[in-house]
Amino acid sequence: MSFQALPGFRDVYPADCARRDALFDAWRQVSTRFGFARVDGPPLEPLDLYRKKSGEEIVKQLFAFTDQGGREVALRPELTPTVARMVGAHSRDYKKPIKWFGLPQLFRYERQQKGRLREHFQWNCDIFGEESLAAEAELLAVLVAGLEELGLNAGEVEIRVSDRMFWSELMDHHAVPKEARYGVLQALDKMEREDPAKTRELLGPLADPALAAIESAQRNARLDELMGRVSDLGLADWVSVDLRIVRGLAYYTGIVFEVHDRARSFRAIAGGGRYDHLVGLLGGQPMPACGFGMGDVVLLELLRELGKDLALPATTKLYVAIADETVRPGAMRLVTALRREGRSVEYPFGAMKLGKQFQQAEERGASHTLIVDAGLAEGRCALKSLADRTQIDLKLTWDGTAPIFSPPLPH
Amino acid sequence: MSFQALPGFRDVYPADCARRDALFDAWRQVSTRFGFARVDGPPLEPLDLYRKKSGEEIVKQLFAFTDQGGREVALRPELTPTVARMVGAHSRDYKKPIKWFGLPQLFRYERQQKGRLREHFQWNCDIFGEESLAAEAELLAVLVAGLEELGLNAGEVEIRVSDRMFWSELMDHHAVPKEARYGVLQALDKMEREDPAKTRELLGPLADPALAAIESAQRNARLDELMGRVSDLGLADWVSVDLRIVRGLAYYTGIVFEVHDRARSFRAIAGGGRYDHLVGLLGGQPMPACGFGMGDVVLLELLRELGKDLALPATTKLYVAIADETVRPGAMRLVTALRREGRSVEYPFGAMKLGKQFQQAEERGASHTLIVDAGLAEGRCALKSLADRTQIDLKLTWDGTAPIFSPPLPH
Repeated sequence: MSFQALPGFRDVYPADCARRDALFDAWRQVSTRFGFARVDGPPLEPLDLYRKKSGEEIVKQLFAFTDQGGREVALRPELTPTVARMVGAHSRDYKKPIKWFGLPQLFRYERQQKGRLREHFQWNCDIFGEESLAAEAELLAVLVAGLEELGLNAGEVEIRVSDRMFWSELMDHHAVPKEARYGVLQALDKMEREDPAKTRELLGPLADPALAAIESAQRNARLDELMGRVSDLGLADWVSVDLRIVRGLAYYTGIVFEVHDRARSFRAIAGGGRYDHLVGLLGGQPMPACGFGMGDVVLLELLRELGKDLALPATTKLYVAIADETVRPGAMRLVTALRREGRSVEYPFGAMKLGKQFQQAEERGASHTLIVDAGLAEGRCALKSLADRTQIDLKLTWDGTAPIFSPPLPH
Repeated sequence: MSFQALPGFRDVYPADCARRDALFDAWRQVSTRFGFARVDGPPLEPLDLYRKKSGEEIVKQLFAFTDQGGREVALRPELTPTVARMVGAHSRDYKKPIKWFGLPQLFRYERQQKGRLREHFQWNCDIFGEESLAAEAELLAVLVAGLEELGLNAGEVEIRVSDRMFWSELMDHHAVPKEARYGVLQALDKMEREDPAKTRELLGPLADPALAAIESAQRNARLDELMGRVSDLGLADWVSVDLRIVRGLAYYTGIVFEVHDRARSFRAIAGGGRYDHLVGLLGGQPMPACGFGMGDVVLLELLRELGKDLALPATTKLYVAIADETVRPGAMRLVTALRREGRSVEYPFGAMKLGKQFQQAEERGASHTLIVDAGLAEGRCALKSLADRTQIDLKLTWDGTAPIFSPPLPH
């Protein structure tokens, strides 16, 4: 019997986990700076939550099953329905605009392909209760700050904004029948990866005006206003109008946007938009809403490709080397006291030659070794720097349970 | 159709989510101080991973199902089998002792009861590759530091340690047949909540020596050594021998321990022990191992009961009030610049009376309001403290994109 993770799931070893923590810490920090409060919901939800929002079609793409209690349930493929339900259930307890973020792990039963995962994490930001374009502008601002915090700039990635209502109005104007409209949006969504002749065919009578509008990055009054706000926020370098962006999901009602690397080597890094009907659809007081999600997988690939590894917090570790086993009890007291001060401290678990201990100190990433021997009883010990191999003598006294070193230990 | 979370699952709103983040940050910080590196694994695992470890019995208690690819899978009920598999697969890549921690969300299909959840988070610490009791002592030390970090002391909670081998040896000595041994361990595990006569009956011929050993907190050489190490680490106030602790799970092989509130108002806060066979059982190079898990649910209940709410990080928020809509573009530039400096900044999304803006600033938890009007073009603005309602004039100049205030803004 062989034991390994399921296909599409990741075992996350220390180096990758530290990178992920650094990413999440950056997102948390940026979200807080922009006044977003963190929320979370269950990773397992009633299947109807996604059916209601996206239709029966979605079920095939989910980890869905019937639980022991006969409930149809699914691992969440996105956080939006959960937060829309949450805000709808308690809309009176929070002053609008409500600004929430989340860092959920999400699941999809994707067809198995190299590099395609079945789980990922997402930075999710939503604003509820604000109908003006100030909400979209604020989302774009926090999104740019999140990218900047990771070391990305406007030369490397871009945000393309569009308006679903631009397309509804154009389809109204050209009397495109209702049943053909979803097909038009799909043709627009796919046109970047599609043969132009095929796109023309799919767009039918709408092809000429649609392609002309896309070509000229035509704006309506709403896109004009949004781009003005974007400029006021100092984000003009990052954001441009691109009407090909419609976002696949059916629930968007207004402005939509996607983030891509400018080289177009990767899939979308983030996407979002306005979805004014969802809170009401899920049983809450109807409420305007918009939001975006940014996944960890594509983003970490892009950062790697650009050679921009995340800065990990330095952990200056102290290793207490025990040169004489008879002083181990005193050494343990010292280890406890140093850790109480907030230092990261390690020590040998058993009797070990001093040279072996120095080697272990290095393996553990220590910057200094504090060497104790029989002199510890008289307050004598030594500090060795692992960087330059220099060693100095220290005098140790105790103030109650707090050790005092002279000269003091480095921070 | 009503939309709500599944029974036993939590929607986590901002105040609770901030508390959870504070808890996780404390655990992360303590783990790092003790040289543990964070790892994570998939929330969904092959069902066999748990069957192999705990037997067919466990399946009923899991969220288990067959996925679209015909695989028997389960939501993880604990992290230990995952990390044991991970360490087994890459044991040569890491120097021993390997010290790992995790903060996984875990799932169990518990019988529905008030206050019983079907998901919780756990702080999980494990040490691999160390056979001496130094490993157990180190686990107890990081466990105590984790409790202290949350403001708990040895008068409020206690760690009870025991030794599975004490019981094996006693059963050997009294020739308890193999098939009766699991029943004896179960009787010991349950005796605190059981009628004493019933316990005597379940223990059978072992009753007298077992109850005498428990009564006198009898120690063997291993418990003596462990308690010595515990004392060296300054943890004697926290830890005592209690042979009634055997831990339900079948896979422990040596020292076991549990953390309880001294008032015994709650279930166990944490539990763990040595499990030297698991890594080999899951296909890895056999390796000594020990670890513990501490859940968030009981712990947060205890902290609430003791009136020890977690300290949440202060977010000194600045609210930029716009007294004159014509300067909104300049105000937006200022908002962006202040956020770039790392400040947490909010502002009104639309035109709003100044009094309404002050109210919103308070609702958002701001400590100060920066008021801008037509004077902004000449670098004039005002700062109002929401704590004492005082207001002072500020002069604003720009150094490139960095705003400079005189007098400077508070931190």
